[in-house]
Amino acid sequence: MVDAVGTPAPGGNTPTPGSGLRRRHLLFGGAAAGVGALAAAGAQLAGTAAPRMQVASEDGANGARTVPFYADRQAGVGTAAQAHGVFIALDLKTGTTPERLKSLLKLLSDDAANLTQGKPALADTEGELAVRPARLTVTFGFGPGLFRVLGPERVQAGPLDLPAFSIDKLVPELSGGDLLLQICADDPLTVAHAQRMLLKDSRSFTTVRWVQSGFRRAYGTEQSGTTMRNLFGQVDGTSNPAPGSAEFERVVYGDDSMPAWTPNGTSLVIRRISMNLDKWDELDKSGREEAVGRRLANGAPLTGKSELDEPDFAAVTPVGFPVIADFSHLRRARPEDSSQRIFRRAFNYDSVPGTGGVSDSGLIFASYQADVQRQFVPIQRRLDELDLLNLWTTPVGSAVFAIPPGCAPGGFVGDGLFA
Amino acid sequence: MVDAVGTPAPGGNTPTPGSGLRRRHLLFGGAAAGVGALAAAGAQLAGTAAPRMQVASEDGANGARTVPFYADRQAGVGTAAQAHGVFIALDLKTGTTPERLKSLLKLLSDDAANLTQGKPALADTEGELAVRPARLTVTFGFGPGLFRVLGPERVQAGPLDLPAFSIDKLVPELSGGDLLLQICADDPLTVAHAQRMLLKDSRSFTTVRWVQSGFRRAYGTEQSGTTMRNLFGQVDGTSNPAPGSAEFERVVYGDDSMPAWTPNGTSLVIRRISMNLDKWDELDKSGREEAVGRRLANGAPLTGKSELDEPDFAAVTPVGFPVIADFSHLRRARPEDSSQRIFRRAFNYDSVPGTGGVSDSGLIFASYQADVQRQFVPIQRRLDELDLLNLWTTPVGSAVFAIPPGCAPGGFVGDGLFA
Ligand code: HEM
Ligand code: HEM
Repeated sequence: MVDAVGTPAPGGNTPTPGSGLRRRHLLFGGAAAGVGALAAAGAQLAGTAAPRMQVASEDGANGARTVPFYADRQAGVGTAAQAHGVFIALDLKTGTTPERLKSLLKLLSDDAANLTQGKPALADTEGELAVRPARLTVTFGFGPGLFRVLGPERVQAGPLDLPAFSIDKLVPELSGGDLLLQICADDPLTVAHAQRMLLKDSRSFTTVRWVQSGFRRAYGTEQSGTTMRNLFGQVDGTSNPAPGSAEFERVVYGDDSMPAWTPNGTSLVIRRISMNLDKWDELDKSGREEAVGRRLANGAPLTGKSELDEPDFAAVTPVGFPVIADFSHLRRARPEDSSQRIFRRAFNYDSVPGTGGVSDSGLIFASYQADVQRQFVPIQRRLDELDLLNLWTTPVGSAVFAIPPGCAPGGFVGDGLFA
Repeated sequence: MVDAVGTPAPGGNTPTPGSGLRRRHLLFGGAAAGVGALAAAGAQLAGTAAPRMQVASEDGANGARTVPFYADRQAGVGTAAQAHGVFIALDLKTGTTPERLKSLLKLLSDDAANLTQGKPALADTEGELAVRPARLTVTFGFGPGLFRVLGPERVQAGPLDLPAFSIDKLVPELSGGDLLLQICADDPLTVAHAQRMLLKDSRSFTTVRWVQSGFRRAYGTEQSGTTMRNLFGQVDGTSNPAPGSAEFERVVYGDDSMPAWTPNGTSLVIRRISMNLDKWDELDKSGREEAVGRRLANGAPLTGKSELDEPDFAAVTPVGFPVIADFSHLRRARPEDSSQRIFRRAFNYDSVPGTGGVSDSGLIFASYQADVQRQFVPIQRRLDELDLLNLWTTPVGSAVFAIPPGCAPGGFVGDGLFA
């Protein structure tokens, strides 16, 4: 007899149909055992590339899955992207003192510590909504205005500033902000509840500057690990450092050659990029594939067969043109200098269409990198100079935040700044 | 050996760990077998009330699940509510002829027939986004304006009109509409793509009047069949006719005593009801429970222990007050006359907060009934007269649609009207 994750079940008696499952409950105690099994299966999946493996899943088990909050680094960066992500920028009220800021960060860290573990927040009035965390993460980001409160010597404005880009049509109400809350989970009700709790607790300290809600494929829709698609239909996120790899470490948290602003800290660039679906839809398939340099069907480079094949920029067509065009997004976005890599963790957005229109869609582009100026800016500059994709995309919001390290139990996110 | 849904696996040889799963693939052919198994498990679950049963789920299998489009009745009514639902009201352009309307309905029905089965729509330019239907349903509703196009004798305006209610603060931009598209799926990208396709194809015929996006728990977050919670934290949907039951048939599709407007047709009332979370949060737990007459923890009536216990309206407290207050939502909403029952299928909404606020949340209340006037209106009238819940809720949008029968292959939704 095998249990559903493929390990022999405890006990050796002949089972009647279904009894193995029930017995496992008795032995390991219900939900927790199911979650453990699921985590084990997940680990197996990550380790092997066996296609279409079966995963033991207790009905509803994903709701109980948690991501630790207390850790050296904040969750929600290397965490496999959840189905739902909301990004909220808050502005500190005028006259906020360092003491007030500290109280706010303590309060919100405590809320996040509870909610991410499936527990109601301290003053939670809808505690019933807190019990299915579904991999909830809350990630805090600090904008220039937050550092200003701490004192002139702490100001990170320079490192967090982006130059002007010619393609930008930025709306102030979708840009900037002093404090970022990035709330992600596989369940939209969980996200809504966490958002509500955190905003309620920050209300006497801050005002809401903007809120952007995004999504990827829901849990259960696709085989785990499938690269997401954006609303142009493209496979988006293929060429990305893998969390856990040395490359990811270097890109996101820095190394000797590229120190982050603080150990275990990183930075986040958020760009709300409107995608003109109407114009895009006028383009034929080969035009679309040329714009990116990858195939729509599976994300393979135009010089390859499968998604992870390395693009061959030297390949030319019979008449001598590059197979992957010089103006393609792939060619322009790919850094020749590996110190310029970034880690992307984007979400799609689909808002209510404006008057006369039928859609208001795009990408909440989000990238983590140790150093915004050395990694993100050169890529964005290149794309600003030339990128065929610019014909169909327009950045309408932009914000940069320092992502402080995580904290230990008893501490709070940002506590290092008050030491 | 048992396979994961609890039925003996074919073949009798001693398995090595994991081999049973792999063998099943070979025997039944991969994905399709997994989906079949899942459907079987789902049927089992629906039939029994065994708590925390395990369901075989191939990683990502929910994405492949489909709900038939061609049927006597439209899908998306009795279909177990999906995680995401978007309601879109369209207005027919001035001068729309019956012929044009027919073309529109043909086009949209054909799109829906394809998309719900995981196939690209005819002119689908993002066909890659169509392949994971995740139980997608598209349900069409006809407003008074649509019947007007068909000719004066066809006008259903009377039956679809709601009287004015004193609690209403209706915004025209969130009310009314000629043609409703109700798009539901367990995956938000699938919903976004279907929405895009349908709106693109309706654009030369209609303008978008309003779009309302809602959500429930995601697939995998909770045990299947768990009643949803709304953003007040309440268990919402307990007392509802069960799809498949005789009661559901009567309530939604009518019988001799209560004929629907057309066989296999029904009607849908959509009310966008803003919920004042700030005011609600000022109330203590017993105040909240009294407002509804049910417990927050598990939705049990205040006179009972578990969710499905029958409320005892005669029970009184030691000092002689009714345990379930006369002004409670439960008492007021429950029809004494069983001909007044309705079938609710609501979604939560959580929009971007307005200036100075921290939330804009509520319920997209949606109810199906054979006859709006005889079933819905008396309940809403009673709630309008007295319902403690009114202190925290405000209807801001309202619309009523006739839901025509489904159609056969080759036909289209609404074809009966052109016969
Ligand atoms: C709506 C806007 C955008 C869309 C639709 C888009 C789409 C894509 C797609 C389809 C790919 C190829 C697959 C992959 O490796 O992920 C890609 C790659 C990439 N994009 Fe974008 N992108 C957008 C904006 C940006 C922006 C603003 C940046 C940074 C400034 C950026 C940086 C990159 C990078 C670094 C790669 C990987 C290049 C490589 O090394 O192969 N993208 N993008
Ligand atoms: C935001 C507004 C509303 C909220 C938060 C709400 C909440 C609830 C809750 C918590 C219950 C008890 C559990 C259940 O049986 O579902 C309930 C029951 C019910 N509600 Fe509402 N409701 C709202 C609006 C409405 C409206 C507008 C109607 C119809 C006009 C309605 C009709 C009903 C009915 C018929 C029941 C079942 C009563 C019974 O037979 O036990 N509700 N509602």
